[in-house]
Formats: sequence, structure tokens, C-alpha cells
Amino acid sequence: MRIFHSHRQSGHAPRREFHNGDWAAFAETPARVTAMLAAVGPVEEPTDRGLGSVLAVHEPSYVEFLQTAYTQWVAAGREGDALGYAFPVSRRRALVLDRIDAKLGRFSADVVTPIAAGTWDATYASAQAALGAVAAVLEGEPRAFALTRPPGHHAGADYCGGYCYLNASAIAARALADAGRKVAVLDVDYHHGNGTQDIFYESGDVFFASIHADPATDFPFFWGHADERGEGPGQGATLNLPLPRGTRWAEYERALGKALEGIAAWGADQLVVSYGADTFAGDPISHFQLTTPDMQSLGAAIAAARLPVVGIMEGGYAVDSLGANLAAFLGGLES
Amino acid sequence: MRIFHSHRQSGHAPRREFHNGDWAAFAETPARVTAMLAAVGPVEEPTDRGLGSVLAVHEPSYVEFLQTAYTQWVAAGREGDALGYAFPVSRRRALVLDRIDAKLGRFSADVVTPIAAGTWDATYASAQAALGAVAAVLEGEPRAFALTRPPGHHAGADYCGGYCYLNASAIAARALADAGRKVAVLDVDYHHGNGTQDIFYESGDVFFASIHADPATDFPFFWGHADERGEGPGQGATLNLPLPRGTRWAEYERALGKALEGIAAWGADQLVVSYGADTFAGDPISHFQLTTPDMQSLGAAIAAARLPVVGIMEGGYAVDSLGANLAAFLGGLES
Ligand SMILES: [Zn+2]
Ligand SMILES: [Zn+2]
Repeated sequence: MRIFHSHRQSGHAPRREFHNGDWAAFAETPARVTAMLAAVGPVEEPTDRGLGSVLAVHEPSYVEFLQTAYTQWVAAGREGDALGYAFPVSRRRALVLDRIDAKLGRFSADVVTPIAAGTWDATYASAQAALGAVAAVLEGEPRAFALTRPPGHHAGADYCGGYCYLNASAIAARALADAGRKVAVLDVDYHHGNGTQDIFYESGDVFFASIHADPATDFPFFWGHADERGEGPGQGATLNLPLPRGTRWAEYERALGKALEGIAAWGADQLVVSYGADTFAGDPISHFQLTTPDMQSLGAAIAAARLPVVGIMEGGYAVDSLGANLAAFLGGLES
Repeated sequence: MRIFHSHRQSGHAPRREFHNGDWAAFAETPARVTAMLAAVGPVEEPTDRGLGSVLAVHEPSYVEFLQTAYTQWVAAGREGDALGYAFPVSRRRALVLDRIDAKLGRFSADVVTPIAAGTWDATYASAQAALGAVAAVLEGEPRAFALTRPPGHHAGADYCGGYCYLNASAIAARALADAGRKVAVLDVDYHHGNGTQDIFYESGDVFFASIHADPATDFPFFWGHADERGEGPGQGATLNLPLPRGTRWAEYERALGKALEGIAAWGADQLVVSYGADTFAGDPISHFQLTTPDMQSLGAAIAAARLPVVGIMEGGYAVDSLGANLAAFLGGLES
């Protein structure tokens, strides 16, 4: 399988994140990439296809913010990585904001997603990797994978969050849909892909299905509940399958069956799979019980749908097992 | 002038706040109260009037959250004060949330407003002080003051923020309106009173006027812009007068004139004044240039409107000058 990845993606290296009331080490480390590269073998540096497909998903003001935030943070005399502290939870609207703290609040959904010196370059390169996989599939490959990092599925049209900046899965889905494919996104990361859902919530041309930890117990809390089904032209094109902590493969497989049924019923002819290895039993921040062989079964079950697949890497924080888990998933996908 | 204050308000003492990317000392300290009490002389302990008037402004789920958050935080094994880390910036809706971090995000607008062991008791007592002042005015006093602390004007119907939990000004305004007065809130704190505005934004029976630092440069950033004028039945009943950093009394007085004109034109027969001493030149977190004599002029200009006044204490962080500034303001109000 052709795998796309840019070395530029490792330039994103925030020092710490803020959650549960205090600083914690930043879990989404460049070491994740090293571990995955060691396991999956040679990768292709993606062609730079520019901002067009990014701007088809993200608001221009948000993209400009990501490009300039760190420089403005430093110009404001701050040290370390940029983080917001106040959030427009009420009557949120487009505003021309000047102060960097205002912009950080306006374009963020949390304080676990710092903007560091290399963030823009890495997330842009990550989006280009996704577009490389899209191009490969549009050229006739049955499947291609983008080893994206930082991940993307928590990022909305105008906000970063959950370690995510540009939403590579949404960018890939939009590009495939714009090329005439009938696209379904299947998100199998441990966490709900709220950014992807939000981007397509009111659009009827991309189906979004997600299997994830119940947001009652796990991030992102406010999204991914079973009653979220889309709105307007998107009504019925969102399918959320939250599962309890402790979920093992047997239960997971049933949810996967429902997701694939929903995707088939909708008539998709193209899959985008947001793959997170944080469903793994050993993941330090997650609570499902999938094994490495289960990752192969997951890939195989998706392959059985017999649709072209663009795979996008999302989370997975058990670095020592990350390469094996990804390799197992990709092996299943090729079966 | 009758002044209402409860010693219970000092039990709220968070250790630190998170802004500009790191921890900072908590600016809204119990020492503020000590300084003000020393300057204004004897105060009255308010009667406990219960939750009725609080629930006329705040959502029951938010009130329950404030009552229980610290206990749940401790039960989750956390140390220190409770702070959220993820915020529902998109498609915010009422949700039954269980995890304390989810509740903190759902019911907060920032990470500068920690919930400590004594927070609920202090903010409840603060609201009771406001209701004490309301009762005094309804009984015929021309003016009464509530030495509220923590402040309230950044708190909305269902969120805390900006050091504020229950919104004493909004609770007072609602109680006065429910008693038949035609109420205008005049907010003269350095910061925009976004919570009060939000609470009355769509209701036509309380006018809200605010003179404050331009949100382009100062917290709360997302609210207080001049184009915010209310909606629906509240259309035209919100008046925002943002001023630039460095503003002195001459310029401030002109804005005050406009605010009082707007209030008179609306036909108010009752004022609630949200008074913040952080317009003072020496305030450590603010950037206006009012002097202590200007505080007396401010009080006198408000008194000249010849309306009954319920005064509510909001911000002011130059602790050494806080007593003198409040005394000057109250002196002006009685002139
Ligand atoms: Zn995840
Ligand atoms: Zn203030």
C-alpha cells in the first residue's frame, strides 16, 4: 500500500498540555511517528498541492490564525507554546480579533492543543500527506494511507482541539467528494471525531460514522452522543456509536458492523477511514481493550466492504506498540 | 447608605489562575474585601432569602454544578482548585454530563475562574448581599450597596467566567424588575459585563448599558463590541460603549453621559450599577486612567440621574487603593 508522510510533520513538538487542572506531558509526541515509520517501511513524501483543498474545509481566518499564531505569541512577549484561556461559549460569531489571546480562544476548543513553533508547518504537511493518498486513490489505487501527524479529527472548520489543527480526514473526504466520489468517513479512533462531524453536520454529500468511547466519560464530552444525526441536508448522514470503557473486540465488531451497514445503506462508493490506535488495551489515555490482532481484524472487516479506502492516521499513544498496531491494521486492510 | 456584605464571601480563595499560557497568582483575592471593609465602615449581614431569585436568572443545572463541582473534583482524585480544559464552542446544547471535567467545560467560559472549596458558599452569600440591597431599595431607600465578592458580571445564565460565578447584578436587576421596577443596569467596571448582557440580551424588560475597555484589546474579547444591541424583544435594550486603553475621565464622562441618556430615553425608573474599581489608573490588570477623585465624580454623575440605585461591587485589583476608590464612589453617589 502506498503510504504518504512528510518528515516536516515531526517539527510540531509542544512541551506540555493543560488538563485535569494542571500541566501534563504532551502525549501526542513526534516519537509516535518514529515508532510508526519503523513498523510500516518506506513512505512517500507528498507533493505540495497548496491550500485549495484545505480552504475547502477550513475558514480562511482560521487558517491564517494557525499560520501566524506562534509568531504573534512570541511578539506578545510570551514564552513556551501558545494556549488560549477564554472561549466564546455564548453567541459565538465571526469577529475580527487582534489580541493573540482572543484569537487563541476564538479558534480553539480546549487548552490541550498548544501551538508551537513548528505547528503550522507540520499540520500543513500532514494535510498534504492526506491529499497524496487521495490522489493515489483517484488515480486507481484501491487503498492508500496517509501517516498523518498531528492528528486532525477533533479540528473543526474554525477551531483546533484535541491535539488537532487541520482536519486531514475532512480535507480528504471533501477532496474525494469534489472529485465525484460518494464518500463516507468511518472514524475508528477511541475518541469521537467531533471536528469531522461538525464540518459535515449540515451537508448531505459526506456520510460520517464514528465508533468511540462514550462522551459521557471521555473527551470530547460535548459531541458524539447517539442522538447526533446531522441537520438540514445532513439529517441522517451522521451515525454515532458510543461504546463503554472496557469494550473488547466482540462488542466493538458489532458496532463496526452497524457502521458499515449504515455506510452501505447510504450508498457510499468511497471510504475515508480515520484510524486511531488508541483503542488498544495498552493505551495510556484510553480505555478500550482491543489487542494487536484485533487491529488486523478491524482492517480486514473494513476491507470486506470492498470500497476504495483512504486511510488517515489519528491518535494512539502507546508508543511502544503503535508501530505493531498500525502494521496490523494496514495488513488487515490489504487482506 | 446601607451596605450589605457577608463574612462568608471571603471563604472563596482560589490559589491561582491560568492565563497567557501559564499559571498566575489569583488576582481576585479575599484581601480585596478586607481593604473595602476598612474604608466603608459598618456593613449589614444580609438575610438569607434562598435560591428563588438566583434561579430566576441562572439555570438549575448550572446552580447544581456550582454547588457540587468542588466535591466532585476532589472525589475524582484531583488536587487544588477545579478548572475545565475543554469547552463546547460548537453546537453547544443542554446535556446531562457526568464527568467533572465535562461539567467544568460545559459551565465555564475560561480557565481563569477556578472553583475552590469555599466558592459556592461565597458566591451564594454574595448574591444574598445583592438581594439585601434590593430589599432595602424596595422598602424605600433611595440607594443601597452590596459589597459583593466574588464579582458576578461575567457569569451567564449557565456559565462562570472572569472570576464570576453567580451574577449578583443580574439577580438584583431581575428581582427589581419582577417587583415592578423598570430597571436599567449600568456597568462601569473596566471589563465588559458579558454575563449580564447575555442574560438580558433577548429580554426587553431590563436595559443594559456598559462602559468598558474595548474587547479588541481586553477580556472578555468576544463580547462588548459596539454592534451588540440586543435581539428579539431585547433589540435596542443593550448599549455598549467600548473605550480605548488609556482613557481618562474627560473621555469617560462623555461615554457616561451617553449611557445615562440611553437609560433615560428607555424610561428606566431604577438603576442597578455594576461598579468596578479597575478603571483606576493604578489597577494592575487594567488600563484606564481614572483617579480616586474621578470615582467621586462618577458616583455624583450617576446620582444626578435621580433614580433609585442598587450598587453591586464587581472588580478592582489595586488592593491598596480599593477602599479609597470605593469610598469615593459611594460618597459621590450620596452627593
Ligand atoms: Zn483519540
Ligand atoms: Zn473588571
